Amino acid sequence: MKTIKVGIVGGTGYTGIELLRILARHPQVELAAITSRKETGLRVDQLFPSLRGAVGLAFSDPAKADLGRCDLIFFATPNTVAMGQARALLESGVRVVDLSADFRIRDVAEWEKWYKVKHAAPELVAEAVYGLPEINRSSIRRARLVANPGCYPTAVQLGLLPLVEKAAVDLDHLIADAKSGVSGAGKKAEDYLLFSEASDNFKAYGIAGHRHWPEMRQGLEAAAGRKVGLTFVPHLTPMIRGIHATLYARAAKSIDFQQLFEERYRGEPFVDVLPAGSEPETRSVRAANTCRIAVHRPRGEDMLVIASVIDNLVKGASGQAVQNMNIMFDLDEAMGLSHLAVVP
Amino acid sequence: MKTIKVGIVGGTGYTGIELLRILARHPQVELAAITSRKETGLRVDQLFPSLRGAVGLAFSDPAKADLGRCDLIFFATPNTVAMGQARALLESGVRVVDLSADFRIRDVAEWEKWYKVKHAAPELVAEAVYGLPEINRSSIRRARLVANPGCYPTAVQLGLLPLVEKAAVDLDHLIADAKSGVSGAGKKAEDYLLFSEASDNFKAYGIAGHRHWPEMRQGLEAAAGRKVGLTFVPHLTPMIRGIHATLYARAAKSIDFQQLFEERYRGEPFVDVLPAGSEPETRSVRAANTCRIAVHRPRGEDMLVIASVIDNLVKGASGQAVQNMNIMFDLDEAMGLSHLAVVP
Amino acid sequence: MKTIKVGIVGGTGYTGIELLRILARHPQVELAAITSRKETGLRVDQLFPSLRGAVGLAFSDPAKADLGRCDLIFFATPNTVAMGQARALLESGVRVVDLSADFRIRDVAEWEKWYKVKHAAPELVAEAVYGLPEINRSSIRRARLVANPGCYPTAVQLGLLPLVEKAAVDLDHLIADAKSGVSGAGKKAEDYLLFSEASDNFKAYGIAGHRHWPEMRQGLEAAAGRKVGLTFVPHLTPMIRGIHATLYARAAKSIDFQQLFEERYRGEPFVDVLPAGSEPETRSVRAANTCRIAVHRPRGEDMLVIASVIDNLVKGASGQAVQNMNIMFDLDEAMGLSHLAVVP
Amino acid sequence: MKTIKVGIVGGTGYTGIELLRILARHPQVELAAITSRKETGLRVDQLFPSLRGAVGLAFSDPAKADLGRCDLIFFATPNTVAMGQARALLESGVRVVDLSADFRIRDVAEWEKWYKVKHAAPELVAEAVYGLPEINRSSIRRARLVANPGCYPTAVQLGLLPLVEKAAVDLDHLIADAKSGVSGAGKKAEDYLLFSEASDNFKAYGIAGHRHWPEMRQGLEAAAGRKVGLTFVPHLTPMIRGIHATLYARAAKSIDFQQLFEERYRGEPFVDVLPAGSEPETRSVRAANTCRIAVHRPRGEDMLVIASVIDNLVKGASGQAVQNMNIMFDLDEAMGLSHLAVVP
Repeated sequence: MKTIKVGIVGGTGYTGIELLRILARHPQVELAAITSRKETGLRVDQLFPSLRGAVGLAFSDPAKADLGRCDLIFFATPNTVAMGQARALLESGVRVVDLSADFRIRDVAEWEKWYKVKHAAPELVAEAVYGLPEINRSSIRRARLVANPGCYPTAVQLGLLPLVEKAAVDLDHLIADAKSGVSGAGKKAEDYLLFSEASDNFKAYGIAGHRHWPEMRQGLEAAAGRKVGLTFVPHLTPMIRGIHATLYARAAKSIDFQQLFEERYRGEPFVDVLPAGSEPETRSVRAANTCRIAVHRPRGEDMLVIASVIDNLVKGASGQAVQNMNIMFDLDEAMGLSHLAVVP
Repeated sequence: MKTIKVGIVGGTGYTGIELLRILARHPQVELAAITSRKETGLRVDQLFPSLRGAVGLAFSDPAKADLGRCDLIFFATPNTVAMGQARALLESGVRVVDLSADFRIRDVAEWEKWYKVKHAAPELVAEAVYGLPEINRSSIRRARLVANPGCYPTAVQLGLLPLVEKAAVDLDHLIADAKSGVSGAGKKAEDYLLFSEASDNFKAYGIAGHRHWPEMRQGLEAAAGRKVGLTFVPHLTPMIRGIHATLYARAAKSIDFQQLFEERYRGEPFVDVLPAGSEPETRSVRAANTCRIAVHRPRGEDMLVIASVIDNLVKGASGQAVQNMNIMFDLDEAMGLSHLAVVP
Repeated sequence: MKTIKVGIVGGTGYTGIELLRILARHPQVELAAITSRKETGLRVDQLFPSLRGAVGLAFSDPAKADLGRCDLIFFATPNTVAMGQARALLESGVRVVDLSADFRIRDVAEWEKWYKVKHAAPELVAEAVYGLPEINRSSIRRARLVANPGCYPTAVQLGLLPLVEKAAVDLDHLIADAKSGVSGAGKKAEDYLLFSEASDNFKAYGIAGHRHWPEMRQGLEAAAGRKVGLTFVPHLTPMIRGIHATLYARAAKSIDFQQLFEERYRGEPFVDVLPAGSEPETRSVRAANTCRIAVHRPRGEDMLVIASVIDNLVKGASGQAVQNMNIMFDLDEAMGLSHLAVVP
Repeated sequence: MKTIKVGIVGGTGYTGIELLRILARHPQVELAAITSRKETGLRVDQLFPSLRGAVGLAFSDPAKADLGRCDLIFFATPNTVAMGQARALLESGVRVVDLSADFRIRDVAEWEKWYKVKHAAPELVAEAVYGLPEINRSSIRRARLVANPGCYPTAVQLGLLPLVEKAAVDLDHLIADAKSGVSGAGKKAEDYLLFSEASDNFKAYGIAGHRHWPEMRQGLEAAAGRKVGLTFVPHLTPMIRGIHATLYARAAKSIDFQQLFEERYRGEPFVDVLPAGSEPETRSVRAANTCRIAVHRPRGEDMLVIASVIDNLVKGASGQAVQNMNIMFDLDEAMGLSHLAVVP
């Protein structure tokens, strides 16, 4: 089988090192280049000693790296970088998976409102495929440009999709109460992310509005074929990795919800519907590309409670990006993604 | 002013040591006795070296301790102990604050369903006053027997009371998504509470039913004067102390909710309604007897989001117990409870 | 290549699940049986949902499991179990890797002093090979019975061996100040291992004497060919996995210590001598079978400082056990052990 | 008794908020001013909601704050600020306690080597009193300028002083292996202090040289009356607060070391020598101004092991600063410092 030449733009953050951890052991991938403006020239394993012996590359200057010779580029950059560079790469025949938010929201005006800059490539927004394989697998296969979903939107959409697609719940009052490990905020040297601030502590944030809200609402509305009402409250949790989304929805139909979920995700390699009565732990997916979901209906009342867990850096970012790559290049979708969760 | 002779029954757990931390520095309290079957004879500061120099007592045998000479006994025991011992103490003129669940639920049949034993003192259930000072201050003052509220019920009720009392929200679909530090489960040597199990991990538990649900429903129904519908999902969070309750309720009236909360809690020494837009952190109340509450209405839609934080061991247990004691003995309600939160 | 039929005795603890995580993805291993008295009949992935889809076995009754049909048995049991069962297995042609302490100490009287029971199979102690591949690789290859080293002894011996073998330091005053994550104590429901006890906390333990001390002293004395003086102080650190041994030794020779280490471990697949000036983090080996070592000589004075880090559950237990299996069965020593550390 | 007017320069960091936590409840202190260039005009309790209801001040502009009307100024600033401002304050009759390192090292050339700037007030270095009350109580009482000790030096010196003063150990080969919580590094937005970097991780740092080494060596040499040899290795531990110093020294005399420590610290309000055989936990001093020390001599060999724990922000910084203030103003040395440790 042909080896895929892969480049990573912006590999010094958490999605970058997680891509490296996965790709360095992927049997069909050749890591051809990794760029970083700040760290140009530094060996990757000097910045990340955990990769000693596995990654021999040095960071290269983004301006000089010959990314055009790659088959695929992952953007592991802050928002607004990929939208400036994707067109040239696509035109030279390189396919792109963007882990940032640049191409996730189809309504460019909405995107500009939340990200507070003018979009540099609105025509690519129209072309980009939203990289949630459980919905868009066949479009991803043919895509030149994949917008890799956000971490919260992955956990929340996978947890609500079966309900929303069937209009099995009150679509006007969905609630997503989501808790994330601190790595979800990225490797940013900001006070609130310091160990002494974030540990032994818990808080909600972005109650008034969070950028992942329009993204997940867009996906749910597409699945529902109508407007949905969604309240989303993210919380910062003192753990490194993991998202736990607790989802509340009022049943609108009298069906077997456990069965609904099991059938919807039958055959999905990375969505695991747990047996009835289960309560998934985030660590059950730590460092693995799996989403585990449990379906509850307390006391048989009309309020459903869905628990959906992922590792925000794997199924919520870099693992899903590699899953998309596998689909795009007609590889086994699970290739290089067989890591079992690290427990304890 | 007269000194209050205080005894603690069952002082080896987390509410026990927290009572000791507070009472050892309370200006009007004399710690007269502390009992433990298991640790009889052991000096308290051998089990808890943090109390060296502050607590000179040894644990005494519950069978032999002369608790009748105390003015007040705190039960910091597992459920079902206090209900067997309270009557004799009350009859000998001792007042009682029970930190366990024995006297919290007025419907004895309901209590027996959740706690799975026959109640040993149903007539005392009728007499007991539910020790949430923000509702029952005047009854507490006269009470012989105070049922100290559970930790979740304290955070959830304080966060919902203003809404429920005024019927300002849809009372049929209240949601309490609550997150607790691990000390909330008590000092029990069980696998799921081990460091290696509970840290870097997050999960919901008790989705199908939790003993604090009937307690908080009872309080909310009393405040509403009618039945309420309440979905309650507790979660285990990798931190020692703290509860963050995120509460969802649909507005039923068009009023100023921020003002509603500020007026309801004006003058309360231990409930702090934060300025509009705030997002309270659990550490802002760590080791302090305070409940901080923030009121949100995202996008002006009809779903209110209330965040309510307490330290589960202080306002959620031992601090509130001392607050009740202060009220019962006509002391300044805040006496001995002026600790500022430990941050960072 | 022939598949190795593997059985695990006592698979419900932390070394058990870690063996499962590794072996379930090992290309030459067939997991034939896993036993547990307590969990007989339970599917492994019900106890460990992280293994759903990867391990289809159920726990079998130790009394009934036909372990004799296995090629290799791992004992992941508490101390004193393997010594009672190993002989029968060996006699039926099964090879054994014991992850417990039963066969680690050659002086049976010394072992009995530390483990406080009579040894059940002293003749096997004489036969057993101490499974530290960096010393005993060729004996391991031929061994029927391998005593897998303890976690502290692995980190400490690998950090001191080059110095001790060359008598390059004062052998009478070696100091090993070691810090371990909490999983090192195993999955035991004891108070001091609870999250609320062990987190946000740090302490030394076993200062007066720890069972790993005679084990590491034995290894160092064998390497030195003489008695050594060793002070060992272990500490409990609020993290799940990882050991950091900080080793102090006074230089007795004037040589290039960095070079000494690099030469000693050249070609070793799982020992990584870091560049001069490095300070290894435990997370750089989290979930990986690597030991990383840094060599320091502060201010050029005579006190050397060696930092040695491992994951106590991998190179300190289950990974090293699989490494030993690979050697015993003439497989690539690194087969199934290529996991990169999980960072962050 | 007269109230002490206190000002704090630079109150936005961790020693600043800890001073506020303590001073806001100190019965003889009036908080007159707190300055911050960056936060001028902001209410203190907006930055630190944990202080709501307790601190009514706003941060004032350092250039405009009338600090001359204070009786005492605490500098809770980064190094090199106090040395530029102390002289003017002292000349206007204000006494100063500097929590930074500016006045700790008497040898100005040595200080300049470690702190890499020219000292702005060498004449004040000569005047400053090193604020370790257990050594310098009477000088502190009369001091205009107190150099509050560093956190590591407090734990290490208190743990070694009795041995060094009596020359009871080999003074040429002292070893201090110290472990600190992350707050010891201050509230700095740097990558290595992020939650996702520092949690579930452990490492040594500054092995080649750390600024606290000359400070503790100076103190030990003063106590010994001769040169000492000291190896110091600090480690970053995943907890917020706490230092655990494990100290190694070879006995040079045959005396009762337990008794030596007990006698040395008899009557000290904030040094607690634990009973023989104890192993102190850092949480036993969390949020308290206490140093707890245990003395060990494993196997009766000549290597002593001393464990010394403090809260780096209290006895290691702000608590000790208030202790010094109490001494300077002839108050009860323990006034406002009676907090018991927060456990769990």
